[in-house]
Amino acid sequence: MQVAIALYPEFTALDVIGPYDVLGRLPDTEVVFVAEHPGLVRNDLRSLSINVVAGLADMPNPDVVIVGGGPGQTEQMSDGSLHDWLRTVDRTSAWTTSVCTGTLILAAAGVLTGRRATTHWGALEHLTEFGVTPTHERVVIDGHYATAAGVSAGIDMALTLAGLIAGDDAAQALQLLIEYAPEPPYNSGSPDSAPVEIVEKLFTLFPPS
Amino acid sequence: MQVAIALYPEFTALDVIGPYDVLGRLPDTEVVFVAEHPGLVRNDLRSLSINVVAGLADMPNPDVVIVGGGPGQTEQMSDGSLHDWLRTVDRTSAWTTSVCTGTLILAAAGVLTGRRATTHWGALEHLTEFGVTPTHERVVIDGHYATAAGVSAGIDMALTLAGLIAGDDAAQALQLLIEYAPEPPYNSGSPDSAPVEIVEKLFTLFPPS
Repeated sequence: MQVAIALYPEFTALDVIGPYDVLGRLPDTEVVFVAEHPGLVRNDLRSLSINVVAGLADMPNPDVVIVGGGPGQTEQMSDGSLHDWLRTVDRTSAWTTSVCTGTLILAAAGVLTGRRATTHWGALEHLTEFGVTPTHERVVIDGHYATAAGVSAGIDMALTLAGLIAGDDAAQALQLLIEYAPEPPYNSGSPDSAPVEIVEKLFTLFPPS
Repeated sequence: MQVAIALYPEFTALDVIGPYDVLGRLPDTEVVFVAEHPGLVRNDLRSLSINVVAGLADMPNPDVVIVGGGPGQTEQMSDGSLHDWLRTVDRTSAWTTSVCTGTLILAAAGVLTGRRATTHWGALEHLTEFGVTPTHERVVIDGHYATAAGVSAGIDMALTLAGLIAGDDAAQALQLLIEYAPEPPYNSGSPDSAPVEIVEKLFTLFPPS
């Protein structure tokens, strides 16, 4: 199985590394990071650079496609080579997937039209602009599309996909391998559960970079 | 605040990227990936290379030190420059931390002697060999040491630390930002909750790389 993870400048690392470290451990699986411009691709915090060895054209038919989000997503909303590639690989992929605001890129490329999908809670309403039905769930499966809510939700999506691809035993073994028995120290991971004042002042405390 | 994340060949990416994408978003925080040999450092799955720009000697007094785990941990158990650096930075760090089998490296370097600590569930018993008390909890704080269980536990550790460093409001805002409201599709993240047959055959399904 071949998994392609598309990177672009100012991506959020955890969006893609969560799914990577789950799906990349399935047997007989090759993961390739791809980008429009191979070479070092720098993340949103600007202190992490991943060395991308493949261009988009080098990966014409991956089995699984993953697009993550991050502040750089806004620069990837215009049609161009990434959108072209997404439309092309989507024709033959077993699964086309996204995490966080990566879903907006898939939506803008036109592949999610008429589908139910999720994205970061702060961006959910924007899906309607692309004819996609915003769905406030952590992981949404519709057809061969799997979309995940914000950042850390990619881990849940990847374990769900691992089960669909390789069976429940393999997925449970992967969950045990990465010891994914989460114990968040607060109950603040969703706008539904976080204190109202935290939701209201989030973007003051952490302005989008 | 300066955070140093030590990498070595065959590290597990999620071990370090979880804490990175939490602590790296705290205000006025600089994260630097460091390694004995700067340049591209390749992970356990061999499909991800991070460009490390600083050597150990370039970061003599970070406020927070993070050591992750992975199959490459076994090559980091002998005394040498990484151990020297860990002992040195530990003298002035506010927090010396580890995720997964990174705890074994800290233990082997001698900085955890007499402390309570945790690591990946499959490695927990080995802590006794270094005079460290194995503690089967997801996050263990003892003095200025914070240790996390396997792989994904680094996210919980980092949110705990974020609260101790920057306060509960900041930590809750970070949890909301990364939408960390986990919903694992199985209940298999710990040897206590996973089906017995999954625990027993884990290392057959996923042999250490």
